[in-house]
Amino acid sequence: MISTLLSRLQRGPDGAPAPRLAFGADYNPEQWPREVWEEDVRLMREAGVNIVSVAIFSWARIQPGPDTWDFAWLDEVMDLLHENGIGVDLATATASPPPWLTTAHPEILPVTDRGEAVWPGARQHWRPTSPVFREHALRLVRAMATRYAGHPALVAWHVSNELGCHNVYDYSDDAARAFRAWLRTRHTTLDALNHAWGTAFWSQRYSDWDQILPPRLAASHPNPTQQLDFKRFSSDALKEHLRAEREILRELTPDVPVTTNFMVMPGTKGMNYADWAAEVDFVANDHYVVPGPRERDELSFSANLTSGIAGGRPWFLMEHSTSAVNWQPVNLAKRPGELARDSLTHVAHGADAVCFFQWRQSAAGAEKYHSAMVPHAGADSDLFRAVTALGDTLKALAPVAGSEREPAEVGILFDWESWWASEQDSHPTSLLDYHREALEWYSALLSLGIRADVVPTGADLSRHQVLIAPVLHLVPAELAKDLTRYAEQGGHLVTTYFSGVVDEHDHVWLGGYPGALRELLGIRVEEFGPLPAGRTVELDDATTGGLWTDRITATSPETEVLARYRTGVHAGRPAVTRRPTGAGSAAYVSTRLGVDGLASLLPRLLEPAGVSSELPAEVRGLVEATVRRGPEGRFLFLVNRTDDAVSVPGVTGEALLGTIGADGAVALGPRDVAVLRLPSS
Amino acid sequence: MISTLLSRLQRGPDGAPAPRLAFGADYNPEQWPREVWEEDVRLMREAGVNIVSVAIFSWARIQPGPDTWDFAWLDEVMDLLHENGIGVDLATATASPPPWLTTAHPEILPVTDRGEAVWPGARQHWRPTSPVFREHALRLVRAMATRYAGHPALVAWHVSNELGCHNVYDYSDDAARAFRAWLRTRHTTLDALNHAWGTAFWSQRYSDWDQILPPRLAASHPNPTQQLDFKRFSSDALKEHLRAEREILRELTPDVPVTTNFMVMPGTKGMNYADWAAEVDFVANDHYVVPGPRERDELSFSANLTSGIAGGRPWFLMEHSTSAVNWQPVNLAKRPGELARDSLTHVAHGADAVCFFQWRQSAAGAEKYHSAMVPHAGADSDLFRAVTALGDTLKALAPVAGSEREPAEVGILFDWESWWASEQDSHPTSLLDYHREALEWYSALLSLGIRADVVPTGADLSRHQVLIAPVLHLVPAELAKDLTRYAEQGGHLVTTYFSGVVDEHDHVWLGGYPGALRELLGIRVEEFGPLPAGRTVELDDATTGGLWTDRITATSPETEVLARYRTGVHAGRPAVTRRPTGAGSAAYVSTRLGVDGLASLLPRLLEPAGVSSELPAEVRGLVEATVRRGPEGRFLFLVNRTDDAVSVPGVTGEALLGTIGADGAVALGPRDVAVLRLPSS
Amino acid sequence: MISTLLSRLQRGPDGAPAPRLAFGADYNPEQWPREVWEEDVRLMREAGVNIVSVAIFSWARIQPGPDTWDFAWLDEVMDLLHENGIGVDLATATASPPPWLTTAHPEILPVTDRGEAVWPGARQHWRPTSPVFREHALRLVRAMATRYAGHPALVAWHVSNELGCHNVYDYSDDAARAFRAWLRTRHTTLDALNHAWGTAFWSQRYSDWDQILPPRLAASHPNPTQQLDFKRFSSDALKEHLRAEREILRELTPDVPVTTNFMVMPGTKGMNYADWAAEVDFVANDHYVVPGPRERDELSFSANLTSGIAGGRPWFLMEHSTSAVNWQPVNLAKRPGELARDSLTHVAHGADAVCFFQWRQSAAGAEKYHSAMVPHAGADSDLFRAVTALGDTLKALAPVAGSEREPAEVGILFDWESWWASEQDSHPTSLLDYHREALEWYSALLSLGIRADVVPTGADLSRHQVLIAPVLHLVPAELAKDLTRYAEQGGHLVTTYFSGVVDEHDHVWLGGYPGALRELLGIRVEEFGPLPAGRTVELDDATTGGLWTDRITATSPETEVLARYRTGVHAGRPAVTRRPTGAGSAAYVSTRLGVDGLASLLPRLLEPAGVSSELPAEVRGLVEATVRRGPEGRFLFLVNRTDDAVSVPGVTGEALLGTIGADGAVALGPRDVAVLRLPSS
Repeated sequence: MISTLLSRLQRGPDGAPAPRLAFGADYNPEQWPREVWEEDVRLMREAGVNIVSVAIFSWARIQPGPDTWDFAWLDEVMDLLHENGIGVDLATATASPPPWLTTAHPEILPVTDRGEAVWPGARQHWRPTSPVFREHALRLVRAMATRYAGHPALVAWHVSNELGCHNVYDYSDDAARAFRAWLRTRHTTLDALNHAWGTAFWSQRYSDWDQILPPRLAASHPNPTQQLDFKRFSSDALKEHLRAEREILRELTPDVPVTTNFMVMPGTKGMNYADWAAEVDFVANDHYVVPGPRERDELSFSANLTSGIAGGRPWFLMEHSTSAVNWQPVNLAKRPGELARDSLTHVAHGADAVCFFQWRQSAAGAEKYHSAMVPHAGADSDLFRAVTALGDTLKALAPVAGSEREPAEVGILFDWESWWASEQDSHPTSLLDYHREALEWYSALLSLGIRADVVPTGADLSRHQVLIAPVLHLVPAELAKDLTRYAEQGGHLVTTYFSGVVDEHDHVWLGGYPGALRELLGIRVEEFGPLPAGRTVELDDATTGGLWTDRITATSPETEVLARYRTGVHAGRPAVTRRPTGAGSAAYVSTRLGVDGLASLLPRLLEPAGVSSELPAEVRGLVEATVRRGPEGRFLFLVNRTDDAVSVPGVTGEALLGTIGADGAVALGPRDVAVLRLPSS
Repeated sequence: MISTLLSRLQRGPDGAPAPRLAFGADYNPEQWPREVWEEDVRLMREAGVNIVSVAIFSWARIQPGPDTWDFAWLDEVMDLLHENGIGVDLATATASPPPWLTTAHPEILPVTDRGEAVWPGARQHWRPTSPVFREHALRLVRAMATRYAGHPALVAWHVSNELGCHNVYDYSDDAARAFRAWLRTRHTTLDALNHAWGTAFWSQRYSDWDQILPPRLAASHPNPTQQLDFKRFSSDALKEHLRAEREILRELTPDVPVTTNFMVMPGTKGMNYADWAAEVDFVANDHYVVPGPRERDELSFSANLTSGIAGGRPWFLMEHSTSAVNWQPVNLAKRPGELARDSLTHVAHGADAVCFFQWRQSAAGAEKYHSAMVPHAGADSDLFRAVTALGDTLKALAPVAGSEREPAEVGILFDWESWWASEQDSHPTSLLDYHREALEWYSALLSLGIRADVVPTGADLSRHQVLIAPVLHLVPAELAKDLTRYAEQGGHLVTTYFSGVVDEHDHVWLGGYPGALRELLGIRVEEFGPLPAGRTVELDDATTGGLWTDRITATSPETEVLARYRTGVHAGRPAVTRRPTGAGSAAYVSTRLGVDGLASLLPRLLEPAGVSSELPAEVRGLVEATVRRGPEGRFLFLVNRTDDAVSVPGVTGEALLGTIGADGAVALGPRDVAVLRLPSS
Repeated sequence: MISTLLSRLQRGPDGAPAPRLAFGADYNPEQWPREVWEEDVRLMREAGVNIVSVAIFSWARIQPGPDTWDFAWLDEVMDLLHENGIGVDLATATASPPPWLTTAHPEILPVTDRGEAVWPGARQHWRPTSPVFREHALRLVRAMATRYAGHPALVAWHVSNELGCHNVYDYSDDAARAFRAWLRTRHTTLDALNHAWGTAFWSQRYSDWDQILPPRLAASHPNPTQQLDFKRFSSDALKEHLRAEREILRELTPDVPVTTNFMVMPGTKGMNYADWAAEVDFVANDHYVVPGPRERDELSFSANLTSGIAGGRPWFLMEHSTSAVNWQPVNLAKRPGELARDSLTHVAHGADAVCFFQWRQSAAGAEKYHSAMVPHAGADSDLFRAVTALGDTLKALAPVAGSEREPAEVGILFDWESWWASEQDSHPTSLLDYHREALEWYSALLSLGIRADVVPTGADLSRHQVLIAPVLHLVPAELAKDLTRYAEQGGHLVTTYFSGVVDEHDHVWLGGYPGALRELLGIRVEEFGPLPAGRTVELDDATTGGLWTDRITATSPETEVLARYRTGVHAGRPAVTRRPTGAGSAAYVSTRLGVDGLASLLPRLLEPAGVSSELPAEVRGLVEATVRRGPEGRFLFLVNRTDDAVSVPGVTGEALLGTIGADGAVALGPRDVAVLRLPSS
């Protein structure tokens, strides 16, 4: 449905028939006097803005009391935007309940696991499971949809905002009631639940559904399956809220696509977006760079995963920042070029929209130090000039709009359930970071110049010659079968330590690790081998492992040893194995090699699949390449990952962005991005 | 009114007519059997003690039940002290409510932002806004004042104790009610409040005063203006309590001066003492050294600021320690000489009293490991001998009593509102420490041997040729005008990064930073430049900056560049600027240079004002000099900041403490202090 | 009574008449399907298991509702075990209340000092003082004892489980009521309590018992004696629960010994086990190694202290681990040999039973990653083979069963009250770690090859020529007298900084430190000398001190100086002193020398007592030696502390474990243990 949206964006005053990439921001005119609105639309036109999200935090303004409504200002905003050729992604405005509602109904406030109310004062202070909140929120959604159905500016619905950013885990009595209902659906009988949760341990056997509680503050480690089911429930409870809003929107405006802004980022773990994606008409995402040693890779990874969640179809970058944010310990401004490179990396991974939080930087409030398209300094600023230049760039990339990603030979499997399960407490190690593991494999592939798709569990695995599944901890029987079939039919599976350990109830697969994958991998491990922080082991291929070291016994005659431990308690024993099976193979990496180590190992893992870099050798690791494919052609994105100039030789095609020199090379300045339409093959 | 107090102290049995410096401690005889009291007064006389604070924590003893009173023991104490020529600074005894009161009225207990009651067991477990507590406290004050009005030992009233040390921030329902009333007074209308708080953001618009709450635990950053107003309110709520007690005392004992002990120290941020000072008849302060790299400078800074708060008039050092305290992670005893140097540094900055917590070290209770004038070891101890020697020294300094501080050419502006506002959350950096910034400028001046006064906002700026205002973050329009006038009339203003950014409502001054001071400084900054921890930038004057680096554009033809960045993202651009204006100038320092860097820069900043050290070159940085001026003459204090001997040449005058050698030099041993009456000029 | 238990274990089907060491584990068959039970008993026999603890967490299974009981499964388990010659240490099953009970009676849940309920979800979520919980728990105990009285498998009762592991500190209203009752018993009158607690300080005087509360969240440091009494009360409250269960068991099964599993480990500070020991028929302990630089020494220390608590009589190792645990940040598997060495070190210190948590590793629940005798990998595993080998070893050590420890010349005094008191807040330093201090002395003795007994206060001191009492902080008058008598009668007392400081009410002994021991030691200290973290002082004997440095004045002509400070503020003054008195002496060590420093100092401290190592010089520090003595002879245990081979020459006797070579030496492989029956002397 994103194409519908994009096509509507063409119906602006300029009447341009060509496809467009969307460009815009959250727009909060209620923070400003009326006279500023005129400057806003003038500057939006100057910058090439064609879409804005409106009313995200306007509940208190739209509905100042239980039975008072004020739409006049919003009517004016909608009209003004439409008159200026700017489409509106209209929020349902339910993100932050107004003071009158929480004063009248404090029972909608979330409660922490320690029993503390989460009070108003910031935002998102509502229980996902509160019937009272739901009733008021849906009443507002209905009012909004009724009011703006048919408004020509309306191009999409924006349900709530960053659902679950602060309220995914609520331990209130409402949550307890909803959790019980969810558990009844999942487990059907108390006996099944008692079995699934292993309540024979620690005298936890339930004799009535009403005895069950969320995992509130406990004396020691709460029941792990209770914890895992509570994570599933919490994600589902928010999804249920999303569906409830969406149903009203579909009823009243069936032709307007509905989305909500996900937050595919390392710190956002609570919402299983792979599971949510089916609920929206197109996937939208918010992304903010968290400074760190691999911040660029993380941005690419998250954009890539968002594309995976969207099934490879175009998606919407609903928020990112033009420069500094305000919620990190130290908030750095972007350097010249970073704004465009960040934006275009998202486009390279399938984004058909580049939007920001927010249009005009607030003078007051909790996010006044968050950058915007129009900064405190005003339009006469380098930042606004960079924004305007980005608008021009996106116009030049119009042909890309609507294209999908071209599948890569390598897939990285990203699994929310394994993320949740592998990092629970009372585990062999508390140092394991699921997301970091996946990102390190991705970084290693980037450094080798090898394209990879990050895909969620449930995606079509057969698209990839090689499937890397780091720490695939939770493996139900069905998934084990799928992976076995994948390998037997010619796929090359790579997995790691602490994979295949538990089933969907977090019960250990017995008989030796890696449980569910033991036969496929042709190995057996009797005890886990976590390493203390700072402790490393050396391998005989000159790599170094950390975090973990398994004592592997090969159990199949076909099992090959790709590397052995040279030091550590398992010196001389296998560290990396591969077992050929059917037309494919299954490999196991038993320690954390880090990006460099993985880059050293990967060629051996990819070799049986015949996978290697598509890039000229001299730019591998310096340039990230992606390919989008659509009705307008195949598009190659070349992103200069470095702060130095890079020349990419041997490129043919039509340059939409950048130029192909006389020498047949694309010259990329520091942080530059080039986009080429590839010759039809 | 401190002169009244001091003159009363002369009316002891010795009948000495000369002025006196006060010397004494908190005295808690109720902790000891009656027979110890006799030894107490004997030792007090031996040590030269002439004042003690009594009954600070005696509520439960004086009023053992709601309608039971026991004054007999206190009568005896008062009489005994008077008989021995010792004046009494009598506490109102309201500091710590007795168990019967909190048992009967648990609704007086403070509540944390997470909703937790703060239970009895320690001290100060009362809500500043509790009507019930207020009623009981004032009843006690009235009883105390009625009982001791006219008692000859009574020389001053000591309201409560360290108001706000633990209870400044209370989030109870009482606090909510009082906060609303305070907000009505401040903002008058809800519309004004909604504007001031920027409630258009995050759907926070209030439609009724009763919807407003203290900034309790929230899902994310609470509204910043709500936070700032709550800080203002919390300071005011305690001030209101102080006034309520004082009014009763003034009614019943109009001739007895009233004070309360402030805590001017880096860790005590909640009470705006500059604002409180007008409420007391003389300023009193508690000060404890927190070990650190510049602990000596901090002591001087705090004493100096206390003097500033007192308007340069004499003040009362109500508490400090003879040696170790008990509440730091590791509590170090003072080394020989430190007791006297600490005490005399306070006197050098205007203290007319040197008092300690406490007279006799407790054998039990939470502060039994806090040092006292009489330690656990008893009077036969080095510590008590040092105390006695200090008593003799203070007698020798009697002429100093009543003198005021002689204004310095340099002033450092210390602004509570900027302290509060600059360190709020969701800011460009969480590493900024307002107090540290001010102290570093002070340390740099000390190291150059240049006297400076630390003065609160509202003081008469025209006294100082140079006014340094580090991180003057919150600048209402009126203050901006005052500073502009100051510079135009010949003053030399120096300010830094993150100054002039917001108005009194914490709204950003738009159009470019440093907002309110942009025109005066003749510069413009488009984006903030915080630096990550450990990251530094070099300047072309060989100094090094941290924490921050601004990208400065000069906007006035007069703007001069005093230093440029040599490294970092702004290499080649201005780092330190000055714009001459009228008869003065306005300078801007855009990075944190640290003490050494500031010491290197300061001569260039001071040069236009013609300010330089008054000390001989060879002792600059080794010796701290202050000057007090009163009816008995001008007094020069020379404090040896080092642990080595220092000789200060070229001094003329009468030595009250120390000696002027034949060579016209004052020889200061390690940690020594000399005091000289300067020749009348 | 442990002999009764062991003799019962002989009555298995094999009918062996010889004494036996017990070997087994917690056995939780309710976690597994019935068919697994058959494999369980088969493998138990294979491993030599002769005892298991059953029903520890079976409450919810045994009593599925208030008036429903299900004993059938447990009958079957008991019968099955008996048929296979395996005795049962039967739990009273009260450790973890079932969901129906906490749902019906949430008022049994513990409450934190911040007022938070501790919810079900883990275990031990009950208030020790809840009358409701007590009633339900005792009803269960009565049902269990009635059911299984006379069952032939029943060899001992296991009261609850790890009492106080999570619930020792409860701040609920039940706790408040019980605390008051306890205080009435201890202090008799409110006046006495007010004196003991020093309530004259901070206005804390109580006028009614009902005003007293546990030390809940307070504004500052809660009253220290309140804190100390609350620690005593909390230990006593659990002891009272233990007694209540025991009384029912003694009533119904007078011949069956009763125990409960202590947790003598550094992190378990709340329960005064020295005080609890009299309440059980034999001492049982759980011990888990916490990785660290002296983990081996700590294991030995804890086993030694357990023996001390048991009065030197045999005790029961109720739980330890075969390999990794699951609750540390990183949980390491044991290396080859460690399982046996850990087990046998406990036996070396008097354990007559070697048991584990648990028999079969759980597939689900919070401890599924805790190792067991049968791991996830199953019986075909190195771990189960090591377990079986250990079973054989224990059979070979059968003659040791029932023997007591042979007193060592050196005793280390371990005092719970000093542990509690010395680490309270508002102290000279927060860096002091009482347990570490004791362990460092123990490690130093180990490194010198000198046997020492760790003994609790109240043990017969006269057994030891040298008594080391590190940080004996709380010294009531009676203890001071005992220690003085000890020294006068020929004992050699060694104590340290921060000893003798307070009496039983945590009141400072006045007149100079170390208060209660000042005269005995012949020294006086006027102020405490804590050192900041990382700061050290050097002594003139080439050792280095940290943490503390006292300024010592010798007050007796006999006081000798064994070492002086070479650096620091007390350079040149005494650092270590000794005063001969009567037939013995009293020495004082005024700084923390660390293990190496103590090892250097100890020979000088031991010399007057004529104590030296009993081991050949070449193996001192490499091998730990203990001696047990019983009806079957004297047994020498030689534990190789190192990971290298060690040869111990000159050993004579009969080797029960290991061999004496032709050269008269015992060859110990890495981590090996040898056990020899010494020739009768």
